[in-house]
Amino acid sequence: MSDSISELTTQIQTFVDARDWRKFHNAKDLSVAISAEAGELMQHFVWQQEEQIERRLEAHREEIASEIADVAILLFEFADNLGYNLGDVMQAKIAHNDIRYPVDKSRGNNLKYSEL
Amino acid sequence: MSDSISELTTQIQTFVDARDWRKFHNAKDLSVAISAEAGELMQHFVWQQEEQIERRLEAHREEIASEIADVAILLFEFADNLGYNLGDVMQAKIAHNDIRYPVDKSRGNNLKYSEL
Amino acid sequence: MSDSISELTTQIQTFVDARDWRKFHNAKDLSVAISAEAGELMQHFVWQQEEQIERRLEAHREEIASEIADVAILLFEFADNLGYNLGDVMQAKIAHNDIRYPVDKSRGNNLKYSEL
Amino acid sequence: MSDSISELTTQIQTFVDARDWRKFHNAKDLSVAISAEAGELMQHFVWQQEEQIERRLEAHREEIASEIADVAILLFEFADNLGYNLGDVMQAKIAHNDIRYPVDKSRGNNLKYSEL
Repeated sequence: MSDSISELTTQIQTFVDARDWRKFHNAKDLSVAISAEAGELMQHFVWQQEEQIERRLEAHREEIASEIADVAILLFEFADNLGYNLGDVMQAKIAHNDIRYPVDKSRGNNLKYSEL
Repeated sequence: MSDSISELTTQIQTFVDARDWRKFHNAKDLSVAISAEAGELMQHFVWQQEEQIERRLEAHREEIASEIADVAILLFEFADNLGYNLGDVMQAKIAHNDIRYPVDKSRGNNLKYSEL
Repeated sequence: MSDSISELTTQIQTFVDARDWRKFHNAKDLSVAISAEAGELMQHFVWQQEEQIERRLEAHREEIASEIADVAILLFEFADNLGYNLGDVMQAKIAHNDIRYPVDKSRGNNLKYSEL
Repeated sequence: MSDSISELTTQIQTFVDARDWRKFHNAKDLSVAISAEAGELMQHFVWQQEEQIERRLEAHREEIASEIADVAILLFEFADNLGYNLGDVMQAKIAHNDIRYPVDKSRGNNLKYSEL
């Protein structure tokens, strides 16, 4: 089932272990790979003006999905390698953001919590 | 349940909508934010030598979890906004990588599929 | 004289050598540091709307200068370490772009050379 | 003369103005482009082990030079657009680092100034 973070993570680790790649996937190199893939995802939007973005998203639908998957796959593996439960870590951060960005102060503006 | 991508995504979109932030979260700005957060995650490992990384991971365990969560939260929202099912997209990419990186050719080396 | 790439590069290498840092500054770690610093520079503009950017530039004038300097200092060192003459490499690229982006086809649009 | 930051900057701005691209080159989009190009530069070293880097540098000498040039060209333009003198800004930062990283405390270690 592809909605389960833990099952996807198991698939990813099975892929990695079948290739004996764990030795390459130390925390530093994983963080570098995640940043590089996030850069590739962003490449699709460099210099794009607002009115061009919709067309871009349609014309490059497959590549963009593929870049998002690249970042996500590495991120799931990274969290697992470090012994985090990704879903728990995300929920903790959402809860934290809920406090840092109170609805009444944040509504409709893009100020950082430190500027609220 | 924090293991479900779709339930976490619903939590994230509820958070965003409560603040009326969808208007800021266009595809370009989301890709930029994802890349910036991935850069923050990588910052923890800049200049770190192999033997320093373990200590770093322990000393900054909370911040690193928080950076991973930041990337993941934005990525889940991004995929959802573009109408992708993140889990499906990930599974398709894992299957694609399985073909691009045959176990017998990839085992124990870090060559790109184009170099195999 | 601070307008000379070679003199600034000498200053940077003198700084690095005085601290015996060349052993840390291998090509991979330098490229990672450059990307991380470029990410910090970009952080200033994440989520910023067009009409907010001017104010941002004024309010954070010193930090932004400092981030630009960080990227430039690492880039000058990187080019020098790899045995490139940065100025020559830049001029060669400008000349190359001049051909890839003919004025009559590129004027006023932001298409990539591959789309012209 | 390609050793002069100001002369290279003039060449870059002449290139940009001939194409009427200044309207696309706002501070945010420039910072995004710089980060994306720095990511491309880093791509050359993702997953590379220490013993592979030398070979990589030789085999991809032209592309790496080209990526360095891309980052530098955008950075020179960015500094100029914001009214900074890049050389001055770099010298000021080198001087600042000289204080933050005293030779006797920094020699041979890679600690951040905040950890010294």
